[in-house]
Parts: sequence; structure tokens; C-alpha cells
Amino acid sequence: MIKNEAITKRSEDFAKWYTDICKKAELMDYSSVKGFIIYRPYGYAIWEEIQKYLDAEFKKSGHQNVYLPLVIPESLFNLEKEHVEGFAPETLIATIGGKEELEDRLIIRPTSEVLFTDHFRRVINSYRDLPVLYNQWCSVVRWEKTTRPFLRGSEFLWQEGHTMHRTGREAKKEALDILKVYEGLGTKLLAIPFVSGEKTPKEKFAGAKNTYSIEALMPDGKALQSGTTHYFGDGFAAAFGVKFLDKDATLKVPHQSSWGVSTRLIGSIIMVHGDDNGLVLPPYVAPIQLVIIPIRVENSGDQKQIDRLYRRLKTHYRVKMDDSSKSPGWKFSEYEMKGVPLRIEIGPRDLANKSVTLVRRIDSKKTVVLLQDLDKVIKQEMKEIHDLMLDKATKYKDEHTTVTTKFSELDAIFNDKLGYAKVMWCGDPKCEATFKEKFQATIRNLPLKQVPHDDSCIVCGKKAKKVALVAKAY
Amino acid sequence: MIKNEAITKRSEDFAKWYTDICKKAELMDYSSVKGFIIYRPYGYAIWEEIQKYLDAEFKKSGHQNVYLPLVIPESLFNLEKEHVEGFAPETLIATIGGKEELEDRLIIRPTSEVLFTDHFRRVINSYRDLPVLYNQWCSVVRWEKTTRPFLRGSEFLWQEGHTMHRTGREAKKEALDILKVYEGLGTKLLAIPFVSGEKTPKEKFAGAKNTYSIEALMPDGKALQSGTTHYFGDGFAAAFGVKFLDKDATLKVPHQSSWGVSTRLIGSIIMVHGDDNGLVLPPYVAPIQLVIIPIRVENSGDQKQIDRLYRRLKTHYRVKMDDSSKSPGWKFSEYEMKGVPLRIEIGPRDLANKSVTLVRRIDSKKTVVLLQDLDKVIKQEMKEIHDLMLDKATKYKDEHTTVTTKFSELDAIFNDKLGYAKVMWCGDPKCEATFKEKFQATIRNLPLKQVPHDDSCIVCGKKAKKVALVAKAY
Repeated sequence: MIKNEAITKRSEDFAKWYTDICKKAELMDYSSVKGFIIYRPYGYAIWEEIQKYLDAEFKKSGHQNVYLPLVIPESLFNLEKEHVEGFAPETLIATIGGKEELEDRLIIRPTSEVLFTDHFRRVINSYRDLPVLYNQWCSVVRWEKTTRPFLRGSEFLWQEGHTMHRTGREAKKEALDILKVYEGLGTKLLAIPFVSGEKTPKEKFAGAKNTYSIEALMPDGKALQSGTTHYFGDGFAAAFGVKFLDKDATLKVPHQSSWGVSTRLIGSIIMVHGDDNGLVLPPYVAPIQLVIIPIRVENSGDQKQIDRLYRRLKTHYRVKMDDSSKSPGWKFSEYEMKGVPLRIEIGPRDLANKSVTLVRRIDSKKTVVLLQDLDKVIKQEMKEIHDLMLDKATKYKDEHTTVTTKFSELDAIFNDKLGYAKVMWCGDPKCEATFKEKFQATIRNLPLKQVPHDDSCIVCGKKAKKVALVAKAY
Repeated sequence: MIKNEAITKRSEDFAKWYTDICKKAELMDYSSVKGFIIYRPYGYAIWEEIQKYLDAEFKKSGHQNVYLPLVIPESLFNLEKEHVEGFAPETLIATIGGKEELEDRLIIRPTSEVLFTDHFRRVINSYRDLPVLYNQWCSVVRWEKTTRPFLRGSEFLWQEGHTMHRTGREAKKEALDILKVYEGLGTKLLAIPFVSGEKTPKEKFAGAKNTYSIEALMPDGKALQSGTTHYFGDGFAAAFGVKFLDKDATLKVPHQSSWGVSTRLIGSIIMVHGDDNGLVLPPYVAPIQLVIIPIRVENSGDQKQIDRLYRRLKTHYRVKMDDSSKSPGWKFSEYEMKGVPLRIEIGPRDLANKSVTLVRRIDSKKTVVLLQDLDKVIKQEMKEIHDLMLDKATKYKDEHTTVTTKFSELDAIFNDKLGYAKVMWCGDPKCEATFKEKFQATIRNLPLKQVPHDDSCIVCGKKAKKVALVAKAY
């Protein structure tokens, strides 16, 4: 009998459990290029579902897809100083093209603000051309020393939105509107309750005026930054000479936003929902939403019925039928490990009763369902499973968000209770640095929903108006 | 009054007409990186329609999408000799990562056979793992000295399929099956009649045993290779040590195929269908299938009716409504230049008659259509326009395919009549080279439908069994 490959239990070794799932659920594989992974079909299909959701959302709100070069001339890259300093240490640089040394070396894009702004200069002339709302699906390269599948890698897949607006107010609104789209991706597709907020000046994106983030809380108590949006003001645009003739017949510089989420979200899904037995995929993002496993089906009439059922369900759901020669037990644990939300067990006795057995991945709940009710029941189950997963993740996040005014409590919060500390912060970078020095923790963001619970900074005791979410992070 | 930007007439200067369309129909823009273009929204949207069609076709036949690194270590690249020699002259090479010189330099992928085969080594163990049917959507880089938008560039978007099979027969069948999918893309989406055939040994892909191509005939009489599929035998797999345990319990090397089409197809669409007034897009691939242009609509009741019509049509078609303040005349020529297949003109009198005026891009045919019949009529028109465009292109191709047995006729075919010469060829590379030396023409392919019309080679007169399609080419 073939045995399933065992994965480390989450409760035993979280880090090893994570990489076991990545490999054994066949989400990814290591490649021969250090730090670069291979997105295998099952992992890539999760990304495709995320793409489908976001692409529709972006287009609904008037965004258009484009594609810009994957290389940036070094001379152009150097035009916006803060940006260069932020990215230069982690760039991959091409120096040879067609067997000749390049005069202007080419940086493999780590992000594309530079190329977009350069392009905007050529296509924006009048206020009538604004806003310009662009998005690009591509991969970017950031040369990393230590990498982990999906969480940190030298190349990752992402979308990057780049927009230009008549006014700063509009550009900032765009950055906040997209943050809401990302939140919706969490609650509607990934069953992850993100916390939206603004990054501190220290943590903001190189060259941005304001950076906003969505943060997710992992079961080891660490936060994972899962997406960011940026408001640039007109700094980038001015550096690249983008101008437009406004309604009042004067030349002005437009205001800019950019925003992105990446395949890091796959890491978020794995960690937030997984359990000792492997991956647990939220139903709406699962590449296989249900697996049909025939049990001891030997007669061809029964087989035909099951084939019919498979074809019927396939028109509404992403279904896999596994009628291979492997044992039912092997299949059960295989699809459990792969996190398939629903399993349909079906044998001659079920067929005689015109029913199947439906088993949920999330809690192993078994239900016998009449064939005639199956489509309806699956639809209900998917919604129920999604809601349960979101509730569970929200409960975990809420229980691990500790509102405190006492610096002395922080150590216990970060090291025993785990999770977020919600504290008052005066805005001084020195106090911010203290979290790092003492606890290896950082201000994840200043939540958009600000409900001050005190009026003095948890570090220095001076006047504080800002609520900060502090945690250790990936 | 704002005037439309004029484009050069096709009949006056074909090359200039082509680049005018690329720029002025806003399909692309040049970037600050020499040889690298920007795919603007209207051009990228054409690619998205091609992607949608092909992705569905690939998945229907069991293919899965994956994503592999965009860089290939030089040491790995050197494993398959023929392949290296084919691609080395046009590679872009990264030599610096994270400010340090790389020990093993990284080639920006010109194509991914190397990485796929390396990955296959790790995931293929048994005949049960076969076939492996993968596809990847990405961009590739080939360092080109002279470039033309969509036709030849240092970076282009494409899909690359890579598959492994138990037997050579199966792998070769895959290469031919996909060629059929590409043919279908031509007849069903692009309204282009491709000629499928096999490349000569001289023209085949670096490392392949057999290369097949789809060729399209442009109105200047030149052929454009629009897609290729390759059968590799087991050469690549052997070089990379891919093996599987077969049913007979012996270790064997699997057989491989790869195949791809690129954004070059956009160039094909432009040239095959365009006319003096600009782009003419086949309806099923057009990003805007119909444009609604309100004319002298001043009363708000009329405007509401038009809005309702717009929303209704949008549920079935890709529709744009242009109610900007520009003149109707400007709009007519703008969307004409952009190749929108159908235009709906609608004014107060039309509304009073519960009708609209429908105008076809392809021949300016005007029809007054009752609002209640509009959805049905549009559907019929789209089919009719598509069929007309395919017929026209097929007729052009057929009229410019000259079957000949006389070498003396070739000059007139290639330089006056233009198009393909269908000739008998003995298989000798020397005779093949003669076409190039004398006429700057090449054997495009040996059509799959072989109907010999003579038994001696058109060049040397020796025995010839193969029908070859010869033409000048892009």
C-alpha cells in the first residue's frame, strides 16, 4: 500500500510545518536558481483565483491593464533619490546584452514607479487625460539573502497599480479605495480579516508620502504585511517632468498613487487556515473546491452515474474526480493535506439510496445528502465553511489583540500571549525604535479606525494621539 | 475643432502606415529602454482576449499553468549544446545581484526549455506521472538590434507550453494537436487563415527534432511566422537527466514538446486586416466591439434611454459609450482608426423611431435597426463581419499562393505578384539556400497538407517529394 507523505504537525514545529505544506501539497518547488521558486500548478491556480477576483474589481472601478518593460535603465532609476536608496541594495542588474557590455546598465524591475512615471510624461497632456488608472500583472525581482517560499523570495508574482490624478485629494482617495478592495479580497475570497492602517514615516515606501497596509495575524503571533498602497504626492511626477494643462490654463504636476499585492498572500492563506493535517483552503479561492472519491465501485452502471454527477457538478464548481487505483484511505488523507474544502464519498450503497456522503475539510463534519439536493447543499456548505473560517480567523485576531497602556506588559504580550499590542504612540521615531530594540517588534500600522484609549505614549509618557498596532512580523 | 491625428495611408507607405497605427491607435508606445515597448491598454486588451481564448483551450485539453523563474543560471543553460548556440548571441545577462558580482551569471529567459526540463527531473518518477502538460504566461527577452513594434522586440509577451510524454509518438502528437489549437485561434478569433506546416531542418528551433509553424500572409506579400510547436525527442530530457520508471519496470527517458505564440499576433492582426483608414479589428478579439455615439442629444429623457441601452448592451458585448464633447465627425474617424467593428449612431430622431443606426467598420454599411431587434442584429453582424474578414484574408492568401514548377517564375512571384510560391523541393539545404541567395526568400514550412504537383526539385531538378511554401518573410 502506498503511504502518504507525512507532514510535520503544526503544533510541533510551525516553521517546518509551513515548508512541508509548501512542498508536499505541491504548491511550489525549489528551482536551480537560488532564492527563485517554481509556482507549481496547485499553487499557481490559487494565484489565478486571486487574479480573477482582483482583475474584475480593478476593471469595475475603471482601471486598465498595461505591460511595461521588465528592465529599467540605471540612469532613469537614479532620478528619484529616496526611491533609489530604498531599492538599490536589493537589485539584480544586467550588464551584458547581445554579447556586448551595456553602456547604461539595466535593473531588473523591483517595482515599476520609474517606468510608469516616465511613460505618464508622454501620455498626459491635459486635465482631460486624468485620471490615468493603470494596473500591471507581472513578476518583480528583489535580491534577497534569506528566502522562504511565498513569504520572501528573489522573484515574486504580483500586481502593481499606478495612477495619476488632477489633485492630491483624488490620488490619496485612490490609495484608500484600493485598500478597501484588498480588505474585500480578504473577507470575500481568502477568509482573512486584514487590519488596514497607515505605515509610520519610517516604514513607508521609498519615495511615498503615505503608505497604507493590510496586515494579517499568523498563528505564531507574528504579523504578515499582505499588501500596500501608496500616495506619492507629486514628487515622482515632478522628478520625471510630468505636467498637465489644468482647467485654469496653467501647467500643473499631477498626483500619483501605486499599490500592490503579491503571491505572499498564498503564504498568508497557508498559515492562517492550515492545521496539523495540512492545508485548509477557503472554498472560494480553492483550485479544487470538491473532490469526488468513488468507493468500491465495480459495476459500470454505478460508474456511469458517478461520471454524470461529476460532469454536472463541474459546470458550477471546480471539481476533481479521483478514480485512480489508490486506496480510499490514501485519497482521504491526500486531499485533506491539500486542503480541499469538501469531499464527496460515493459507493454502491450510497447510489442505491440516491445519496452521497459529504465531508468538510474544516471540521470533518459528515452529512448524507440526497443526490437531488447536492448542488444546493454544496452551495450552502461553501458559504458556511467560508464564514466559519473567517469567523475563526477573526476570533483569533481579536483574542490576540491586546489594548494596553503599560510598557511593562509588552514583553508578555509579544512573547507569551502573542499577537498585536494596541498602544498609544507619540509619533517620535525613537519611541518606535524602542519596540524593535526591546522586543524585535515594529509598528505594523496606525489602524484607520483610530479609537484612542489613553492620552500618553506607552514608551515616553508624552502626549500621544495615535493608536499604533505593534507586533513581531515576518 | 479638434482634428484627428492623420495616419499614413496603407496604399502609400506600408511600413509607415504600420507604425502609425501602432502609435496612433494607442496600441503601444516606445519606452526609455531601447527595443522594449510599452503595451498600452488598447493593445494589451487585444492580448488579454487572445489569452482568454487560448487559456480556456489549453485547460480544456488538460494543461495546467505554472510559473518558473525569469532567470536561468548560465551553467544550466550550457547543458544542451544546440540550444545554447541558438540563443547565446541574443541573451541579456545579469551579472550583479545585491551589489555583488554573481558567480554563476544569470540569463534573462529567452525561452524556458532549460528550466522546465530541470524541474521535470524533480517531479517525474513514474509513467504514472506522465504526461505532464504545463503552460506558462510570461515575457521573454531576446536582445535584438533592429526592432519593430509587436513584430520583433527585445521583450515580448507570450505563452510557452512545455510537456513530457511516455513516448515520442505522444509528444509529437501534442506538438501537432497544439498546432491545430493555434489554427483554431486564427479561424475563430483572429480571422486569419494560417498555413500549418513543418519547418525545414535549417529553420527548426535550437535543440528540437521537429518544428511546426503557423504562417500568415501579409498584404505586402511577406509571410509572418505567427507561432511554433516543437517536438524534442528525448534529447533535452537526457541532457538534464529526466527519467521515469515505465510499466515494464525499466528506466526510460520521456519525450518532450514545447510551443508558443506571442504578442507578434497583434502585428499579424494589424497587417492582415487594416486599411487606409487604420486598424480593422475582428469582432471577437476587439477590446471594444461596439461604440455608441450619441448625436445632438440634449434632452435628459433621451440621454437616459441611451444610458439604459448602453447598460443593456454591456452585459453581452464589450461596449464603449463616447458622450464626450468632441464632434460626432471626430468620433467617427477616431473609432474608425481604432478599428472598432460596429458603431451605433443615435440621436433624438432615432429614439423617436425607436431605432438606431448601425455602421460596420469593415465596409461602412449602414443599417437602421429597431431597438427591440438590436441585440439579435449585433450578434448576427459580429458573426457576419468575422466571416467576411476571414473570407477576405483567405481569398488574398489563396490568390497569392502560386503553384509552380518553374524556377524562372519565382522572381515574378516574389517581386511582382507577391506572396507564396508552392514548389517541389528535394530536401537539400543547398537548394533551400538558393531561395535566400536569389530572392531573399525562405521555405516558410512544408505544409501539413502535402499535395505534390511535380516530382522534381524546382531548384536542382532532382527527385523531390516535398511540397514547400516559399516566401519573403518578416
